[in-house]
Amino acid sequence: MSQETAVKFANEAFYAAFTNRDAEAMDAVWSELDAVSCIHPGWPPLTGRAAVMQSWHDILANPDAPAITCGQETAYVAGEMAYVICAEFLDGGQLVATNIFVREAGTWKLVHHQAAPAPADPAAQKPPAKAPTLQ
Amino acid sequence: MSQETAVKFANEAFYAAFTNRDAEAMDAVWSELDAVSCIHPGWPPLTGRAAVMQSWHDILANPDAPAITCGQETAYVAGEMAYVICAEFLDGGQLVATNIFVREAGTWKLVHHQAAPAPADPAAQKPPAKAPTLQ
Repeated sequence: MSQETAVKFANEAFYAAFTNRDAEAMDAVWSELDAVSCIHPGWPPLTGRAAVMQSWHDILANPDAPAITCGQETAYVAGEMAYVICAEFLDGGQLVATNIFVREAGTWKLVHHQAAPAPADPAAQKPPAKAPTLQ
Repeated sequence: MSQETAVKFANEAFYAAFTNRDAEAMDAVWSELDAVSCIHPGWPPLTGRAAVMQSWHDILANPDAPAITCGQETAYVAGEMAYVICAEFLDGGQLVATNIFVREAGTWKLVHHQAAPAPADPAAQKPPAKAPTLQ
């Protein structure tokens, strides 16, 4: 498996945790060794694992938080750091995200996420019919 | 000079090119060797050097494009890839950006930029009084 594919799997695990509202899985996606940061749409940047994970726990526990699927992923790898650019599909809207990963003991861990609204790309693929899973 | 500082200089050069509407300097900031991509606020992602540089040439040539300064920079480095999270201050608004760099022959080159509106962080430093320069 190429490192690009491995990074895409890690990215998929992030969105699976989001879709499944699985706080434990979300916790496992994010680095515990490196500095982490997160820019939710319209929020000021969050820095530090405690603040970032608290935000995710709040989002996952919120019944009004939208269901989300990921698509149009492109992964770029340079040594021990990598990033994925992808679309996030929500009911009635689309975001675009930059997700940065660091490889720790052979496992790609999320260290930074920024998502913001973006218009639909007419040339892009359609969103997946089902939420992505790792099975 | 630490690599974090070197990356911040490269980030500053990006905003200096923006502020000075210097298309040649903007061209020099971006990688010519690696894949580049750019997510302007509210735009679909642009991929490929031709599309990204055309967007910057259009922005820099537009007299209505806002003046911009950068602040609150934090740099993270892992080997040959690095990223900077920073605020972008415009008249009447604030954005937050993720800028990803790759080190090519010892020089940090921009490969990805995403910027999106963000509320002001009340705990954050004030924007610089003058546009940043490398002098």
